[in-house]
Amino acid sequence: MRKTLKEISEISDGEVLGDENTIITNVAGITEAKKGDITFVSNPKYEQYISSTNASAIIIKESQKDKVKIPSIVSKNPYLSYAKIIMHIAKETEKHPAGISCNCSVSKSAKIEGCVAISDFVVVDENAKIDDGTIIYPNCYIGRNVKIGKKCLIYPNVTVRENIVIGNNVIIHSGTVIGSDGFGYVQENGLLKKIPQIGIVEIADDVEIGANVTIDRATTGKTFIGKGTKIDNLVQIAHNVQIGNNSIIVSQAGISGSTKIGNGVTVAGQAGLIGHITVGDGAIIAAQAGVIGDVPAKETVSGYPARPHKHAMKIYALIQKLPELFEEIKKLKK
Amino acid sequence: MRKTLKEISEISDGEVLGDENTIITNVAGITEAKKGDITFVSNPKYEQYISSTNASAIIIKESQKDKVKIPSIVSKNPYLSYAKIIMHIAKETEKHPAGISCNCSVSKSAKIEGCVAISDFVVVDENAKIDDGTIIYPNCYIGRNVKIGKKCLIYPNVTVRENIVIGNNVIIHSGTVIGSDGFGYVQENGLLKKIPQIGIVEIADDVEIGANVTIDRATTGKTFIGKGTKIDNLVQIAHNVQIGNNSIIVSQAGISGSTKIGNGVTVAGQAGLIGHITVGDGAIIAAQAGVIGDVPAKETVSGYPARPHKHAMKIYALIQKLPELFEEIKKLKK
Amino acid sequence: MRKTLKEISEISDGEVLGDENTIITNVAGITEAKKGDITFVSNPKYEQYISSTNASAIIIKESQKDKVKIPSIVSKNPYLSYAKIIMHIAKETEKHPAGISCNCSVSKSAKIEGCVAISDFVVVDENAKIDDGTIIYPNCYIGRNVKIGKKCLIYPNVTVRENIVIGNNVIIHSGTVIGSDGFGYVQENGLLKKIPQIGIVEIADDVEIGANVTIDRATTGKTFIGKGTKIDNLVQIAHNVQIGNNSIIVSQAGISGSTKIGNGVTVAGQAGLIGHITVGDGAIIAAQAGVIGDVPAKETVSGYPARPHKHAMKIYALIQKLPELFEEIKKLKK
Repeated sequence: MRKTLKEISEISDGEVLGDENTIITNVAGITEAKKGDITFVSNPKYEQYISSTNASAIIIKESQKDKVKIPSIVSKNPYLSYAKIIMHIAKETEKHPAGISCNCSVSKSAKIEGCVAISDFVVVDENAKIDDGTIIYPNCYIGRNVKIGKKCLIYPNVTVRENIVIGNNVIIHSGTVIGSDGFGYVQENGLLKKIPQIGIVEIADDVEIGANVTIDRATTGKTFIGKGTKIDNLVQIAHNVQIGNNSIIVSQAGISGSTKIGNGVTVAGQAGLIGHITVGDGAIIAAQAGVIGDVPAKETVSGYPARPHKHAMKIYALIQKLPELFEEIKKLKK
Repeated sequence: MRKTLKEISEISDGEVLGDENTIITNVAGITEAKKGDITFVSNPKYEQYISSTNASAIIIKESQKDKVKIPSIVSKNPYLSYAKIIMHIAKETEKHPAGISCNCSVSKSAKIEGCVAISDFVVVDENAKIDDGTIIYPNCYIGRNVKIGKKCLIYPNVTVRENIVIGNNVIIHSGTVIGSDGFGYVQENGLLKKIPQIGIVEIADDVEIGANVTIDRATTGKTFIGKGTKIDNLVQIAHNVQIGNNSIIVSQAGISGSTKIGNGVTVAGQAGLIGHITVGDGAIIAAQAGVIGDVPAKETVSGYPARPHKHAMKIYALIQKLPELFEEIKKLKK
Repeated sequence: MRKTLKEISEISDGEVLGDENTIITNVAGITEAKKGDITFVSNPKYEQYISSTNASAIIIKESQKDKVKIPSIVSKNPYLSYAKIIMHIAKETEKHPAGISCNCSVSKSAKIEGCVAISDFVVVDENAKIDDGTIIYPNCYIGRNVKIGKKCLIYPNVTVRENIVIGNNVIIHSGTVIGSDGFGYVQENGLLKKIPQIGIVEIADDVEIGANVTIDRATTGKTFIGKGTKIDNLVQIAHNVQIGNNSIIVSQAGISGSTKIGNGVTVAGQAGLIGHITVGDGAIIAAQAGVIGDVPAKETVSGYPARPHKHAMKIYALIQKLPELFEEIKKLKK
């Protein structure tokens, strides 16, 4: 990229402060930036670096104008403005596989519609249907009767098992498994007998799924991931889980069978939810929380067992004071 | 499937109550079921839906007879009866790869016995032995000298490293790695020197292993998974771990090196066990527990550090009462 | 292997005590060892087995001389001595793929230097560069512009995305994903908009990375793993994380975005670190700890939220005493 700060301000919805002919060639974090880079400040923790950054320009909020000594872009949302510049650069540099490789194995009964990329050593099994604009990187497996919509991006070594349904604009990162059997057994004469998992997984439009995620197929019916929901790496989603729209499931979280997650929910890293519970719209499950009951809409919970976060915070503080408390009791007893 | 309720009752070991000619075409959960479906109720949480379900029939216990208004099957174990119908449907619809693909790579020294399926882009390395009825999905790697028994099912993108021994009727889900090196280093002059992991993993008959699981090979000797044990997704099993028969290891649990787990043990989701400890037969490790010492047979433990669950429950309750306690101390001091 | 105890003592830097012509053919743990094996004792927990082991010889410390009744090797560091014998055996038995398979797909623009092994169904994409002595097992994907140094070992089903830089002597275990997109979104009109992740991952020399690990590429700049650092299975390393040299990250730990880990740090199993914090050199994060702030050099922290371990231990002990405390308060009130 090689643009003037003026051009950058148009890409990023901001206004130039200082020399609008400053040349910008790249983006970088505030402490790593060097000549030619534009950076931004959003997290207050990094505000201290505004005066010392080596960037050629910086995106700031109106209120930070006085702190800046270098050319800058004033934006209502510096992070969004910065993201827009990155999106611009990505469009320029992004490159994906194209066409159907001679080294892949596509079943004769599969339906490949429009312009699809199927890379080396990909297997597309019987009756699978892949729609226009979808790109499949090497070494993926697309099972029998799978339906994949338009403009999906499937990175290497992904497994999509039979009968799974994937919408449009879905991104699936490497190593992820969609449609593995749910973990279901029934005891008979002291042995664990497998319950076949004959349901499916359905993934709505605009979902992104991280690397090495596991999403199990339903026992019957479907496991469902709603439109626009984003799932981070190494997340476990058990059979028959239902997740709403625009929710965020952070790395290493685990959601047990048949649990229902609403819209706009955040499940933070390493949190665990038992099965058969409901989490309301807009709820936030804190990192490492262990959730063993329903969570109302817009509630924030933390700890094990998870409690409303304000209460939990108070409890954490009091726990830290236990040594003093025990001392006081000793005194009182005397 | 298209069967009368009478026929279904024979499959599911129950007795018909109501019209035995009711036509059943599928199975479904009690809240999702529609006309033609048979459902069941087992978890008391779902008993409330008995009267409102749209299913054509329902599997119930003797004691629930009065609540039912639709044709039903009375069973001693409704969940098991339901599972048997699912097993019946699965047998009808299940379809796996067959034969040896022209797009796989099987070493000349490998021994393929009887009728084995080896799919596209599978590698079977030197001297590996695969027995009759085993099915290997695309993109798997079967290492040197690996032995795989009869009727195993290995889903796409599985890695089985050299010298691993796998019994009969073992199921391994996608992305799982059997026999990666144990995490072993020794300090020498301040640097971490790798200890080669020259042991193996042995997996007994009837084991099922979920997706993206990691089971490390032993430093010397073997890591062992006993007959009938079931392992969920994203579980970590370190080098030299020994697991008994018919145990259950739930998603995202982690078991550290040389720990011994007995028979019929349950390790719930996200639990962690340190190394070199012993968990007795029938013990239960609660979800997210952090186990730092031996657990006696039949004990249930929870929390961090894990304690007997009854004690831990009492502690959780008291912790929630800390705000009141601190208030009371204040008063007492006055 | 077939060696006299004298020869073994030279391999393992120890001195023979007893019959130096004792024949040693293998190594084994102290409880599993049988005739012909040499074993060792290091963990005091296993000292009780010195007198009952069936091993033909044992490696011990000077101070344990009196307890031994079989031929032995006296060593300053029995574990290191034992490791050296294992390294010797491994060198004798280790076997890796060689040469470039006819069943792989290497881009014409890729640069393969010296003697490299590229196995079946590996894809090496445009302009990737792989240096002398590196071995790539089957079904791996090496992306565009990736640079891999000398003598690396990449096990099956690994994904290395575009532009990643990997040093010399790096080991990557199966199922691991290097360079998946960081988990970055920005809200715009209530929707989550993806921020393209245009940075890279750089992995220094002598790093080992376990199975099914995920290391995300940076938003801009790089995610960095320092020289000699060892990462266990199923670990999550988020975008822009920086890890120093010779650190240890144990299984299922998760490190959030932009966090900086020093040199010689240990992050134990299932620990979680929030983003944008700093962990000083030599710090230890205990298993399952939830770290929400900076950790000073050499500090050991545990619990949630993580606190200095000595303090946390005191707190754990007092928590266990809460039932008595509540009883005492009751009495005091009376």
